[in-house]
Amino acid sequence: MKIVIIGGVAGGASAAARARRLGEDAEIVVLEKGGYPSFANCGLPYYVGGEIEKRDSLLVAPIKMLKERHRLDVRVRSEATQIDRAAKEVTVKNLETGGQYVEAYDKLIIATGASPFRPPIPGINSERIVALRDLNDADRMRELATSAAKRAVIVGAGFIGIEVAENLARRGLHVTLVELADQILPPWDREMVLPLEKHVREEGIELRLGSSATKFDSDEKGLHITLSDGEVVEADFGVVCIGVRPDSKLAADAGIECGARGGILTSNHMQTNDPDIYAVGDVVETVCAVTGDPIQIPLAGPANRQGRIAADHIFGRDSKYRGTQGTAVVGVFGKTAAMTGLSEKVLRAKKTDYLKVFLHPTDHAGYYPGAQQMLMKLLFAPDTGRILGAQAVGTSGIDKRIDVIAMAIQAEMTVFDLEEAELCYAPQYGHAKDPVNMAGFIASGVLRGDQPIVQADALTNAEDLFLLDVRTEGEFAKGHIPGATNIPVEQLRERLAEVPKDRKIAAYCQVGQRGYLATRILLQHDFDAANISGGYRLWAIENGKL
Amino acid sequence: MKIVIIGGVAGGASAAARARRLGEDAEIVVLEKGGYPSFANCGLPYYVGGEIEKRDSLLVAPIKMLKERHRLDVRVRSEATQIDRAAKEVTVKNLETGGQYVEAYDKLIIATGASPFRPPIPGINSERIVALRDLNDADRMRELATSAAKRAVIVGAGFIGIEVAENLARRGLHVTLVELADQILPPWDREMVLPLEKHVREEGIELRLGSSATKFDSDEKGLHITLSDGEVVEADFGVVCIGVRPDSKLAADAGIECGARGGILTSNHMQTNDPDIYAVGDVVETVCAVTGDPIQIPLAGPANRQGRIAADHIFGRDSKYRGTQGTAVVGVFGKTAAMTGLSEKVLRAKKTDYLKVFLHPTDHAGYYPGAQQMLMKLLFAPDTGRILGAQAVGTSGIDKRIDVIAMAIQAEMTVFDLEEAELCYAPQYGHAKDPVNMAGFIASGVLRGDQPIVQADALTNAEDLFLLDVRTEGEFAKGHIPGATNIPVEQLRERLAEVPKDRKIAAYCQVGQRGYLATRILLQHDFDAANISGGYRLWAIENGKL
Repeated sequence: MKIVIIGGVAGGASAAARARRLGEDAEIVVLEKGGYPSFANCGLPYYVGGEIEKRDSLLVAPIKMLKERHRLDVRVRSEATQIDRAAKEVTVKNLETGGQYVEAYDKLIIATGASPFRPPIPGINSERIVALRDLNDADRMRELATSAAKRAVIVGAGFIGIEVAENLARRGLHVTLVELADQILPPWDREMVLPLEKHVREEGIELRLGSSATKFDSDEKGLHITLSDGEVVEADFGVVCIGVRPDSKLAADAGIECGARGGILTSNHMQTNDPDIYAVGDVVETVCAVTGDPIQIPLAGPANRQGRIAADHIFGRDSKYRGTQGTAVVGVFGKTAAMTGLSEKVLRAKKTDYLKVFLHPTDHAGYYPGAQQMLMKLLFAPDTGRILGAQAVGTSGIDKRIDVIAMAIQAEMTVFDLEEAELCYAPQYGHAKDPVNMAGFIASGVLRGDQPIVQADALTNAEDLFLLDVRTEGEFAKGHIPGATNIPVEQLRERLAEVPKDRKIAAYCQVGQRGYLATRILLQHDFDAANISGGYRLWAIENGKL
Repeated sequence: MKIVIIGGVAGGASAAARARRLGEDAEIVVLEKGGYPSFANCGLPYYVGGEIEKRDSLLVAPIKMLKERHRLDVRVRSEATQIDRAAKEVTVKNLETGGQYVEAYDKLIIATGASPFRPPIPGINSERIVALRDLNDADRMRELATSAAKRAVIVGAGFIGIEVAENLARRGLHVTLVELADQILPPWDREMVLPLEKHVREEGIELRLGSSATKFDSDEKGLHITLSDGEVVEADFGVVCIGVRPDSKLAADAGIECGARGGILTSNHMQTNDPDIYAVGDVVETVCAVTGDPIQIPLAGPANRQGRIAADHIFGRDSKYRGTQGTAVVGVFGKTAAMTGLSEKVLRAKKTDYLKVFLHPTDHAGYYPGAQQMLMKLLFAPDTGRILGAQAVGTSGIDKRIDVIAMAIQAEMTVFDLEEAELCYAPQYGHAKDPVNMAGFIASGVLRGDQPIVQADALTNAEDLFLLDVRTEGEFAKGHIPGATNIPVEQLRERLAEVPKDRKIAAYCQVGQRGYLATRILLQHDFDAANISGGYRLWAIENGKL
């Protein structure tokens, strides 16, 4: 058995190691176009920023180890330029010597990954503009950042853009972050990242949302970036982080089927339309684990699992890829945003019915020092209560809650199951009613009709609503939703006469708990009442008041 | 509807708040024997130690709030002394005035909790000995600790004993911790807490394992504790933390059925044998969510959920308690131990078939600064792969992994599902292959026959085994399992002739990964090989070498 693997990072490296464990006698050739197999590409921004000090620490599986321990025939600077499926051969170009040769295979695994997208903007190929895909790019960015450079412009505020922004700022540069969308981190829903945008700005990053670069002019003085509103931003260098595109040309040229998003199509065994050719990682189009829809999401975890599965199938195992959930996390200046499953914007685009609830729990018991409030959102099916997605943003305990819900989504659990989750509790770690339980309580209360809700983002133009602020007078005085009437929940029972019976009541408090109690009181007195999910705090976030 | 709730902490308080939300018109009386309803009992050790500075912060739901917001008729220092089921009345003693009265109920919820056990040891009722159940106890302990006291003895090294030990040490006291078992934290398996015992000792705690107090002598000089080995330990005061017993006497006297462990028996609606009487929290015997066996575990999360469920059922809802998983976490001097599901010792006592694997992953990617190694154990069913339990000990990311596995246990997932878990990954948060995935890979490999394993604790007297250390010569020289032969995995393929064909090979490396590869190599060359789960590191922990 001879296996050729094109691409030696993440999915390719996982496939190679797994293939070796299953096939001690197999000949395994790994063709890596770059200089390093199995490098830690998720660490690149932190190497640029200096948080990761040593370049070598990014080389998680050095060539020597792959060769000696796993007996992999790893060839770096080796580009596969053509696949001859009939002959079962790959043409390989040695990028050092320029020489070409042909390598036969019994089974081929394509793990070519994805490349940073460079849109055809005038001047984008300037030497002053870099992307961040591999160690060479990181080296180049470090050079640029450690020179006399004072200002950088980053185009694209996705994961990489945000991480690079933080890391360049850490090096002392003034960073302007340009993003076409009206928010940073487009996979998240907009309201969820508003607190992060505030935080990022406070850390000195200049955000230009709803904006794009239309022209790059370079000269010896620097880079002059013309934005879509006509303004010209000055910088010493620019970084383009506007997403990646699957490197599937090699496969497509050989007649391997690709999807509408450009990714290679595979079975759940990661097998392409050619049964001797597999594809894994960022180069493949996969399916959403929640909906089964085709998706193209570049993530390291799925790439690694797909690599294992391809190797398994080559060696006769029945391993199947279950699809990608889209679990992701990003850190920026000490804050964390995490998500799993579908976002509201995706659900809306799909015209899928969904419900959403918001909450603001603390990461651990409020009575123990250091508790930090987070913003959490849960999306679920109105009929069955099945969990569709979750997002959380805050300082601590964010990834934990999203990981727990990711597991619940994998198990196709419902919001009723979240109510019953039994999670770790001691005051420095969580709550007797963990944020995951609380999300379950709230969502289940909505489904059971105990807690009808109104969304904060639906209040505009909802003039028929009677807005009832049930916080204290002091809280109300500090800020409230315009038009609201204040009756503290403690006084509500005695002051029901002040609440109209002929209008729908939208009650709210700071985070949602007193609003819920007020809603319960009103409903039981035959008012048409609902709680504003996420309370004043969410409304304030959404309306720039916080 | 008139509901009387006996006990206003955790389960009782949850039941009261839920009952109010469901029944705005209900009369709800909460009888609390102590001075404070709804106080944070899990915070008491940290108030003793000063980490929680203000006593008031432990009063999570002050009486004023319960009265004004929830309209609960909360009566503190009010002890229910008798239940007359026929008349549906409770006799209440006012502990302030000594007066007695009778309170009628339609529905009664017993949430009397559990009391620290005080075994009949001579002298145990000394003024110099305290337990830790409520705020008064905490006040008393603070007084004792802030006096001229220099030495304390704690009897019992369970959750509370360990937390109190840390907190008294934080106050500058020399602490001796006496525990009857041969380990601290008896709910965990012994090998899992060995690293913690080392850590606790390094922090200055004197551990006396396998030891008990047989006599307490008090005089003006202090407390003289005679241990089971005859030694007398001197201290200024003592703390007794040898577990709790359900406060079920009131219920039992009224003919409410109790189980063998002393806890009140209930249906999954938390209903006792009297349909008008419910019981929740530490006073009830519940069932294990994994096995269905009766268990008595005092935990705050379950108590809170049970309170909700009892109130739900009173108001005609079909809510059901699913049983207790035993998810628990404890912190001590910056380290964390967490567990969920069954321990090996419980499985062994039940004579249930199980398999176990060990691993030592880091909390986040090794290439990102600050990664900390943990010890993790996964227990699962040999036939189906169903997850039975998990434990982890380390510095960071411990509660997260156990919470994820707790969710998997709740969903009755298998180790094969853990392989596919899609969890948050960025280098500062986790791994592309998270510890949860790794646990799944290893356990699944065992079940699929890819990775036969040998347990480190089974090596004694296993002289038929050929111990093969596949680490580097340098690692081998620093310490190895006695009798092992060293062939680095990188050289194994060339040196197979040195490995006997007629004996079973137990390969090992530092943590298990190279040992796994070596096992794969050997198996494919027709050796009878297995990997020592957890590697040299676990063996070293178990044998006091680390």
